[in-house]
Amino acid sequence: MNNKPIGVFDSGIGGLTVYRALKQRLPRERVIYLGDTARLPYGSKSEATIIRFSEENARFLLGHEVKLIVVACNSSSSYAVPHLQTSLDVPVIGVIEPGAEAAVAVSRKKVGVIGTTATIMSGAYEAAIRKRNAALEIVSRDCPLFVPLVEEGWGNHAVTRMVADEYLAPMRKEGIDSLVLGCTHYPVLSEVIAAVMGPGIRLIDSGVTTAAQVESILQGLGWLNTNPPAEEDEFFVTDYPERFRRVGGIFLKRKISRVSVAGD
Amino acid sequence: MNNKPIGVFDSGIGGLTVYRALKQRLPRERVIYLGDTARLPYGSKSEATIIRFSEENARFLLGHEVKLIVVACNSSSSYAVPHLQTSLDVPVIGVIEPGAEAAVAVSRKKVGVIGTTATIMSGAYEAAIRKRNAALEIVSRDCPLFVPLVEEGWGNHAVTRMVADEYLAPMRKEGIDSLVLGCTHYPVLSEVIAAVMGPGIRLIDSGVTTAAQVESILQGLGWLNTNPPAEEDEFFVTDYPERFRRVGGIFLKRKISRVSVAGD
Repeated sequence: MNNKPIGVFDSGIGGLTVYRALKQRLPRERVIYLGDTARLPYGSKSEATIIRFSEENARFLLGHEVKLIVVACNSSSSYAVPHLQTSLDVPVIGVIEPGAEAAVAVSRKKVGVIGTTATIMSGAYEAAIRKRNAALEIVSRDCPLFVPLVEEGWGNHAVTRMVADEYLAPMRKEGIDSLVLGCTHYPVLSEVIAAVMGPGIRLIDSGVTTAAQVESILQGLGWLNTNPPAEEDEFFVTDYPERFRRVGGIFLKRKISRVSVAGD
Repeated sequence: MNNKPIGVFDSGIGGLTVYRALKQRLPRERVIYLGDTARLPYGSKSEATIIRFSEENARFLLGHEVKLIVVACNSSSSYAVPHLQTSLDVPVIGVIEPGAEAAVAVSRKKVGVIGTTATIMSGAYEAAIRKRNAALEIVSRDCPLFVPLVEEGWGNHAVTRMVADEYLAPMRKEGIDSLVLGCTHYPVLSEVIAAVMGPGIRLIDSGVTTAAQVESILQGLGWLNTNPPAEEDEFFVTDYPERFRRVGGIFLKRKISRVSVAGD
């Protein structure tokens, strides 16, 4: 098992923030990444559809003999992880539980959660936070325009500040002390979000805690790779490899070489 | 043939503007509508993917014995219509040619075209306009945030006016005399767009001209229905029938009764 790769899937490119955290923590692990760019976004879609797409993505990764699957998409994690954990033979880790873990660690009184419509409607963060600390108050809302604004490259645009203010001002008034960025695209907006929220509110990105959980599970199983990986990481997309190579390079701050179309 | 329904497909809900124009012109025709809501939007995706999705949608409609297919989605029309016209046995009509027809009829000197990234990258409107009048100047650009803004219900929001100004001010300065709304969502923004463009610029929505072309083709083939339809129209979606029923009701200004999930 030790030499087998870790599989990561996301609806598109946002999961690269989780990939990056994983590689920083576990540089000896090889990763196979799948971005379902033909069917993105998942955040505006229903539970049944998200589960079906997630199962297909997991099957693709299993075809590449991965030893563990990280569901880097919050919408998929909200709905499909419990399902995949029952149906698959390898460990499956989503980003919700590690994100909730981090929120509980830094919040004192009231925590805010933002995400796609699917993630917020699922109530998955609320349940995961309450399970750990039932005394914390939780305020949540969906922010459907954040993903298209990031994809448009308007991460620091006046329009984005205006949208962020409209979405987040009520949360600021509610007096939250931490804010879970419950979508892998949102860390790109962290400056704008921090400016709207003001000082003293901690922003939580679950990538780092997810990577720590992956390490602890592989360690427990004795499946950590002890040698540097023999092969490069591989990236698969279901549409537009060129765009993924280009925008992904910005996410990772380095060139992505091997991007293929899944199925070709 | 006369009693058989007309098939209409779109990536989601926007095609209802074309459906409405069709029903106004041809109230005796029964329509089967398919919105591919599980995989929307198409406008940010590649030619190959759009063609594949469009073929699957057309096959679904043929399974319901439609006599003619209207491709109500501009992104699909841009890439997939010539392809479907070769591979299918029924007439296939997209919205690009009728939209270009209308643009040529009202423009004197310089026409603007806006649409999704896929539609604009295809150059389909430019080619269709040039074929009719090579002397018209054409300026075009994609407006990726318009669809998510409409879907968010922000059709008349300050943010939308700001985005429209950013996208459209350069076109206004270029001195266009008409503007093709090359995406079925955009008529919802026509007030905001008209305010940004100022008086004297004609906005072109291809739904009406598309309906006229459908009539003329069915008439030529002797396939028009001479009796009122025996059955109600049917609406199929690939995801979220509830949302389609609710938002679609706003598009059509009446209740939509029969919405089913394709494949169920």
